[in-house]
Amino acid sequence: MIDLRSDTVTKPSQLMRDVMAKADVGDDVYGEDPTVNELEAYAAKLVGKEAALFVTSGTQGNQIAVLSHTHLGQEVIMDEDAHVFVYEGGAISAFAGVQSRTLPHVNGEIPLKTLEESIQPDDVHFPETGLIWLENTHNRSGGTVLTIDYLKHVAEIATHHNVPVHMDGARLFNAAVAIREDVTTITQHVDSVQFCLSKGLGAPVGSILAGSKQFIANARKKRKMLGGGLRQAGVLAAPGLLALKSNIKRLEDDHEHARMLAAAINRYTDMVVTHDIHTNIIIADTAHSAKTAKEWVSLLAEKGISVIQYKPEALRFTTHLNISTKNINDVINLLKTCS
Amino acid sequence: MIDLRSDTVTKPSQLMRDVMAKADVGDDVYGEDPTVNELEAYAAKLVGKEAALFVTSGTQGNQIAVLSHTHLGQEVIMDEDAHVFVYEGGAISAFAGVQSRTLPHVNGEIPLKTLEESIQPDDVHFPETGLIWLENTHNRSGGTVLTIDYLKHVAEIATHHNVPVHMDGARLFNAAVAIREDVTTITQHVDSVQFCLSKGLGAPVGSILAGSKQFIANARKKRKMLGGGLRQAGVLAAPGLLALKSNIKRLEDDHEHARMLAAAINRYTDMVVTHDIHTNIIIADTAHSAKTAKEWVSLLAEKGISVIQYKPEALRFTTHLNISTKNINDVINLLKTCS
Amino acid sequence: MIDLRSDTVTKPSQLMRDVMAKADVGDDVYGEDPTVNELEAYAAKLVGKEAALFVTSGTQGNQIAVLSHTHLGQEVIMDEDAHVFVYEGGAISAFAGVQSRTLPHVNGEIPLKTLEESIQPDDVHFPETGLIWLENTHNRSGGTVLTIDYLKHVAEIATHHNVPVHMDGARLFNAAVAIREDVTTITQHVDSVQFCLSKGLGAPVGSILAGSKQFIANARKKRKMLGGGLRQAGVLAAPGLLALKSNIKRLEDDHEHARMLAAAINRYTDMVVTHDIHTNIIIADTAHSAKTAKEWVSLLAEKGISVIQYKPEALRFTTHLNISTKNINDVINLLKTCS
Amino acid sequence: MIDLRSDTVTKPSQLMRDVMAKADVGDDVYGEDPTVNELEAYAAKLVGKEAALFVTSGTQGNQIAVLSHTHLGQEVIMDEDAHVFVYEGGAISAFAGVQSRTLPHVNGEIPLKTLEESIQPDDVHFPETGLIWLENTHNRSGGTVLTIDYLKHVAEIATHHNVPVHMDGARLFNAAVAIREDVTTITQHVDSVQFCLSKGLGAPVGSILAGSKQFIANARKKRKMLGGGLRQAGVLAAPGLLALKSNIKRLEDDHEHARMLAAAINRYTDMVVTHDIHTNIIIADTAHSAKTAKEWVSLLAEKGISVIQYKPEALRFTTHLNISTKNINDVINLLKTCS
Repeated sequence: MIDLRSDTVTKPSQLMRDVMAKADVGDDVYGEDPTVNELEAYAAKLVGKEAALFVTSGTQGNQIAVLSHTHLGQEVIMDEDAHVFVYEGGAISAFAGVQSRTLPHVNGEIPLKTLEESIQPDDVHFPETGLIWLENTHNRSGGTVLTIDYLKHVAEIATHHNVPVHMDGARLFNAAVAIREDVTTITQHVDSVQFCLSKGLGAPVGSILAGSKQFIANARKKRKMLGGGLRQAGVLAAPGLLALKSNIKRLEDDHEHARMLAAAINRYTDMVVTHDIHTNIIIADTAHSAKTAKEWVSLLAEKGISVIQYKPEALRFTTHLNISTKNINDVINLLKTCS
Repeated sequence: MIDLRSDTVTKPSQLMRDVMAKADVGDDVYGEDPTVNELEAYAAKLVGKEAALFVTSGTQGNQIAVLSHTHLGQEVIMDEDAHVFVYEGGAISAFAGVQSRTLPHVNGEIPLKTLEESIQPDDVHFPETGLIWLENTHNRSGGTVLTIDYLKHVAEIATHHNVPVHMDGARLFNAAVAIREDVTTITQHVDSVQFCLSKGLGAPVGSILAGSKQFIANARKKRKMLGGGLRQAGVLAAPGLLALKSNIKRLEDDHEHARMLAAAINRYTDMVVTHDIHTNIIIADTAHSAKTAKEWVSLLAEKGISVIQYKPEALRFTTHLNISTKNINDVINLLKTCS
Repeated sequence: MIDLRSDTVTKPSQLMRDVMAKADVGDDVYGEDPTVNELEAYAAKLVGKEAALFVTSGTQGNQIAVLSHTHLGQEVIMDEDAHVFVYEGGAISAFAGVQSRTLPHVNGEIPLKTLEESIQPDDVHFPETGLIWLENTHNRSGGTVLTIDYLKHVAEIATHHNVPVHMDGARLFNAAVAIREDVTTITQHVDSVQFCLSKGLGAPVGSILAGSKQFIANARKKRKMLGGGLRQAGVLAAPGLLALKSNIKRLEDDHEHARMLAAAINRYTDMVVTHDIHTNIIIADTAHSAKTAKEWVSLLAEKGISVIQYKPEALRFTTHLNISTKNINDVINLLKTCS
Repeated sequence: MIDLRSDTVTKPSQLMRDVMAKADVGDDVYGEDPTVNELEAYAAKLVGKEAALFVTSGTQGNQIAVLSHTHLGQEVIMDEDAHVFVYEGGAISAFAGVQSRTLPHVNGEIPLKTLEESIQPDDVHFPETGLIWLENTHNRSGGTVLTIDYLKHVAEIATHHNVPVHMDGARLFNAAVAIREDVTTITQHVDSVQFCLSKGLGAPVGSILAGSKQFIANARKKRKMLGGGLRQAGVLAAPGLLALKSNIKRLEDDHEHARMLAAAINRYTDMVVTHDIHTNIIIADTAHSAKTAKEWVSLLAEKGISVIQYKPEALRFTTHLNISTKNINDVINLLKTCS
């Protein structure tokens, strides 16, 4: 099968398995795992923050960010398609006791006027605004990238109102590669950022949360409460480090593959790609296709291609490091025959 | 001052004060306050439910409803202008640990397809849908009334998916009076309902939460946790009972006053009333007025009329039992001079 | 019936009912109820704090104190019989998300060494200590009074570790009267205090939470979230004010009645009073009585005396303003015949 | 260094590293990791439960157990030294909103009368009892084992009152090996159990939560909310499986080492071992030693032995699979010279 369902399905390479097997380890709850310590230092520097924390998933990094930035009874401003709202089981309300104020957006960007007006005035009726949330790349918009100009304006508003900004950067390096900038060009505008070592970077497990020293000290306690304090975590940190050192630049290949595939979908099928392809995600609308989304999923599966039905009338294709140019060409050839 | 800011400003009549002073009381935490017991029995019967609970405010009744219907980590479906989301300090996320899924609506009615699609499938990524929320009359839509047909369809969807329905009926009797139906025509379609004894009905303090016996037994515990278990609460229940017995029919006067006032605003000023007047609330848009909303508030205040700036470019006028026909005519005459 | 179950059963006097009926009121959510404002100012001054807030019950005042002093994930240090732990439905864990660390005590006083050692060091395994909790008088110890010396030492420890102190003073004025000191002699040692206007002071409903201006501003928001924001609350504030002005000194009568009754229990029955009588509560142990606690409750009920079974082998008698010296003498005469 | 601080410091063997490097993996969030699936099936069978879930730590397994068994506002009965109360950051109150009722105990066993009396009656003042908590072996009692007779009686009480029982079996297999019984002799008496693959069993990361199918389905959702849903988790499951298959019987060696070491401490030093040695933990009291606990830690460190100061006047020594009989003899010889 050519598995285009998600970049979360990537499997560790032999080299990754080797570094994992040889990792120098210790008890990370005691702060004694040298590989974890190396990864956290490397990751913090990479994104230009004082400190970083290894966590077991993007969801865990996001949850810790909310728990560390906010107080019970506050409100978090986010776009209405944010992963933290849609796919994390309502956990920020359940665990941190905060209300999600979900706003309309275009490609993950909330109109700035709407954003600023949603910051609450001081009044007993309203929750305090505790955090502004950004997602970059924006998953449900098809992996689109927030513009640096947008980030600057959000940071200005946040600073003016004294509200911190967190970025869910599960696919942060896809964003940086897409705009051909150093990742700090992005992260300088936010107080904290989470990014995944799995997904496109190919490590089997793990994400990083980065921010100020004080924020990460607080985050470390919240991680323990969530059960994310691991023992010999170096076995996961080692492939994570390798992923950061080896697999960032090559994300450009995934983006090129996505552009090739999107063009083919538009040309050879009656599906319509709904967004410009900034990175590695394609959302193909089936509303005007002769086949339903469900039928497309079955048909492609028969031909050896796994995709997911993303919405009632849309498919999602995702490119990643286990998908070669040959795979893409095979898929394109198949699409020609499906029309 | 003619105070049109809200129907919450109504002051108890002399008769109410008299019944309050003479109320037969006991310790309601022990279930021994005869006046509270009478009020709860009367209120339950009035709205066609098995049981009812006296609570100190509409907000408290709403909070108890969520705490009693849902579990931590679930989701509550509601319109994006719901009082419980906008004006209750984010409390349902803070205290009950539930996520608010806020949906677009017209006059408080969420399109049925949108509503049904927002009920979550069984998947580890999604919170379970724990409750559907209705608000009737709908405050931020200008006191509009949900249609019986809408209520029927919501109830069908809810039953089909085995999700309970709560109605925030802070102004429930305004709704019933407006459609000239017995209130049970409305409440038969919901599992629980909260309505206020203060506001238009004129009691100084208190609301009722009604539902099944089991629901109210659970609610009684949640009320204690919120600090709503009172001692000699009969002093509040007595005016509440009087309000229910004396002040429902006369809400029609408030509605007539609102219609008169809305017509005058449209005729004599450059503000525009944004909704049909179903009940006692008027929202007047100032976007195309020569004066800003803020200027209108000041100008009217100078003339002895209190209103509130409801949105950046809108005022709210509310009629209630302390506003006479003469008051309305005085306001109308004043509006003529403001043009 | 002579009702000695609790001082919560006191009924408002005719004078209280009169002031209630004549109270000047307004919408307290808008800060416009003059009687509430007067009560809050009077109460703050009385206990020597910058500001005060009218709340609907002692439980609500306690919950707001925790919500205002602490953050989710912190720990509150308290004695293991504290009302907030035993009788408030577990609400501080449910709503504020804090852990109760319950410690052994004598008459509500936790040994100082134990108290100080329970303040948590900075370590990812431990919750931060967010609040130290005192209860005065101490209900489950039979209404005993914390010594001023104990309060001083607790305040020193709290200051040293930068942890705030709250006092659940549901029966605060019983404590002050018992030690014949101004109440500020007690309250100067705590950051915030809650005391009840109902119970021994005789108002039908309500309590006061007092502390710094900033604390009370925060508390006001939390009260709204709990549904404790009332409308024309002056009808409750007026009897509350009268209670504070008229009914404090007379608590000495209740204490004298309790001493008389306790002496009689020890002399004429085979029950044993378990504590020195500081105030208005008597706990009588039945472990060595020929009758069980349950049998005692029934026997006394037959004779027209209501008491409660407080523990499997203990009764509680409580004196209050609806119990006269004649009532006490009647009870004593009855006890003579029960031996 | 001979590291006796904790059995959490064990490092994966070469064989473990090999199986990790060769593990067959997939995306476990999609249920497609064959090694995780194998581990969960194997573990469930081993402890005699319908289903099991791989989690990243004992703390996470415990948190999920509380989130899955209880409702917000309930109470969990536990001994006052329980790991979940002392070392998990207050998380069950913070996240699940439950109150911990901590009771006195001997070696982890709460007197049965105390336990049963602490189950709450139905009353608005009291939180419902949602869960009974056992810890086996009991860490803070020095790794003591709960008797089967105790478990039977707890199960009877729990069944009678319809309250579920969870066992924190972080060191469950130490308990089973110590009493020379199949582990199901223990686990048959509880509704759910958590045990660690790390600690004495030697896997680098991970724990198992086991229970009924319905419980584990619910637990899977809670795990996702905590960020414990991993991707290619087979790299952790493979060493976990090996640990379960290879390292249980050998725990007897650790226990024998602990007995040897404890005897030497009592014979050759002025410290006193405080408990019978059931398993692999020794708590040595320094109250009557010429040296303080702190001085002992330093002295032993100078000689190449790491232990932890467990309480103000006690050390903890823990034996585990990286400690050989030769290591123990070396430590014993050293202790002889310290006297």
